[in-house]
Amino acid sequence: MGLSYRDTGVDIEAGAEAVRQMTAAVQSTYGPEVLAGVGAFGGLFAADALKALDAPVLVASTDGVGTKTKLATRLGRFDTLGEDLVNHCINDVLVQGARPLFFLDYVAASRLDPARVAAVVGGCARACRAAGVALLGGETAEMPGVYVDGELDVAGTLVGVVERGRLIDGQAIRPGDAVLGLASSGLHTNGYSLARRLVDDLDLAAHHGLDRPLGEALLAPHRAYLTEIMVLLAAGVGIHGLCHITGGGVIDNPPRVLPAETALVLDTAAWTVPPLFRLLQRLGDVEERELRRVFNVGLGMLVVVPADEADAALARVRRTCEAWPVGHIAPRGDGEPVVFR
Amino acid sequence: MGLSYRDTGVDIEAGAEAVRQMTAAVQSTYGPEVLAGVGAFGGLFAADALKALDAPVLVASTDGVGTKTKLATRLGRFDTLGEDLVNHCINDVLVQGARPLFFLDYVAASRLDPARVAAVVGGCARACRAAGVALLGGETAEMPGVYVDGELDVAGTLVGVVERGRLIDGQAIRPGDAVLGLASSGLHTNGYSLARRLVDDLDLAAHHGLDRPLGEALLAPHRAYLTEIMVLLAAGVGIHGLCHITGGGVIDNPPRVLPAETALVLDTAAWTVPPLFRLLQRLGDVEERELRRVFNVGLGMLVVVPADEADAALARVRRTCEAWPVGHIAPRGDGEPVVFR
Repeated sequence: MGLSYRDTGVDIEAGAEAVRQMTAAVQSTYGPEVLAGVGAFGGLFAADALKALDAPVLVASTDGVGTKTKLATRLGRFDTLGEDLVNHCINDVLVQGARPLFFLDYVAASRLDPARVAAVVGGCARACRAAGVALLGGETAEMPGVYVDGELDVAGTLVGVVERGRLIDGQAIRPGDAVLGLASSGLHTNGYSLARRLVDDLDLAAHHGLDRPLGEALLAPHRAYLTEIMVLLAAGVGIHGLCHITGGGVIDNPPRVLPAETALVLDTAAWTVPPLFRLLQRLGDVEERELRRVFNVGLGMLVVVPADEADAALARVRRTCEAWPVGHIAPRGDGEPVVFR
Repeated sequence: MGLSYRDTGVDIEAGAEAVRQMTAAVQSTYGPEVLAGVGAFGGLFAADALKALDAPVLVASTDGVGTKTKLATRLGRFDTLGEDLVNHCINDVLVQGARPLFFLDYVAASRLDPARVAAVVGGCARACRAAGVALLGGETAEMPGVYVDGELDVAGTLVGVVERGRLIDGQAIRPGDAVLGLASSGLHTNGYSLARRLVDDLDLAAHHGLDRPLGEALLAPHRAYLTEIMVLLAAGVGIHGLCHITGGGVIDNPPRVLPAETALVLDTAAWTVPPLFRLLQRLGDVEERELRRVFNVGLGMLVVVPADEADAALARVRRTCEAWPVGHIAPRGDGEPVVFR
């Protein structure tokens, strides 16, 4: 008997079984635009709608979820990783004013566990359906010797579209603008290497003073702000800038959209850092500045609007998402781009 | 002193250094369509050209390179992985007749080595430039405890466009059609888990009967067939179907495009399986059928054309790529979808 591919740890049949399990979920995300999906070399998305735009701009983002994957492994729950991926990507294209169109996933592990892969992809499909996004394709890979046994990684790519004249890039931000903070649902997908280390010895099934088990709080899916931002845009709110709080927290993300001569002044009394972050802080004696640089500290998305539109915008957003007027834009001068007060 | 993110193995500065090193290479791929790239939440690609199409269809594909990453680690060379990724993706959208527009990469490891990341992304940039593709974005991730120390994984997503009326999906394939085989440059990105096991004890710097060192032959980048296919399309050749030979080899890939009632008859005397595949076969006493199901056995792309256009098409392709008339399409009857003769 000669050596076969299966002998090396790559099980083509296991991959095929995973594909069968997730096909129905994936196909449930197809609108009439999807001309070919699962099984095709490339997914096909009819882009006739782009022709109606004066100057269509495609917006694309690739993201992972960091070592939230390891938390999922510890808790044995994988569907939320798919939601994390899709929603993270949606927020990344949304901050430029774009409407998401389609998504592709990548799932890899030392060995493919069909049930795990199907759970991840099923979670992607659920989040895609909720946002009207087509799960157009993906790739699963068995990489013996590259991944630690029992672990997995997931990544995703989302493509959206925006009319060029409606692009949001932060260049309209000016001193005096108001800043709204939209509540995060938890850690979203950042800071897990630190968070996991801090909870390493803890019972994740216990509450530790939170309103639910610690593990559940840590695994809460990254939320998308599609509804809130689309509602603001549809209402004609003059959004000057949007900032998705990802890796780098509320300190390193705002400078990605702030004009160089402006600073974001965050009023720390305007919102309460959720108990989960305070618990993590206590567990590791984490300094306040480090906390703000690693975690979203309760703010998943910042929305910069003209001061006179702030109240109306806040009222609109609050119909579907907890939100606060968390600060304003000031001239930067010689100071830091993000100031806490 | 409290615990910081760096203590956990995630080095934000190392990530920033990698970004600096690769920014110039990435920006060299930008045409006027790229409105925002490195540093933006989402890359921006002006899609005005799509408006000129009657019915634009976006074609997207996500791919990895399998455990070719481990071979790169063993040989300490990482730039070719970027070429592998981009070219694999190009071929996947090309088989549907699409022109590639932009690409995004994902690079992850236990710890980020800025030089390695820059080499991978630099390779992506080189392949993108060669194909006129914009490297629009990407993500690097440090995943301590998910990846085996010293290893890395790479994945990529490419988006292309095709006029709906010019989509190639294989449905035009009919008995009597001729099949051209375009030479692969090596293993491309498939079968590495088996190949690596077979060469585990060998000196990769030695030739082992090949025309170059074994390691170099194994690491040869996946080639793209963009020039060849675009030349055929521009010349008006009536391509009935295209098949990229990836995981599953020449046995499992053709059925992805063949109509159910047709079979591909491959004439094994029409091309020579390159010495690298024969060497691997000898090393593992690999059965011929397993070889053909795991590897491309010398054929990177199959082109199905009307029999009376085969000679002219072959002559055009041969200006830039070794190619052979490797078979024809027959009625399938009760037999296998791929028959060797």
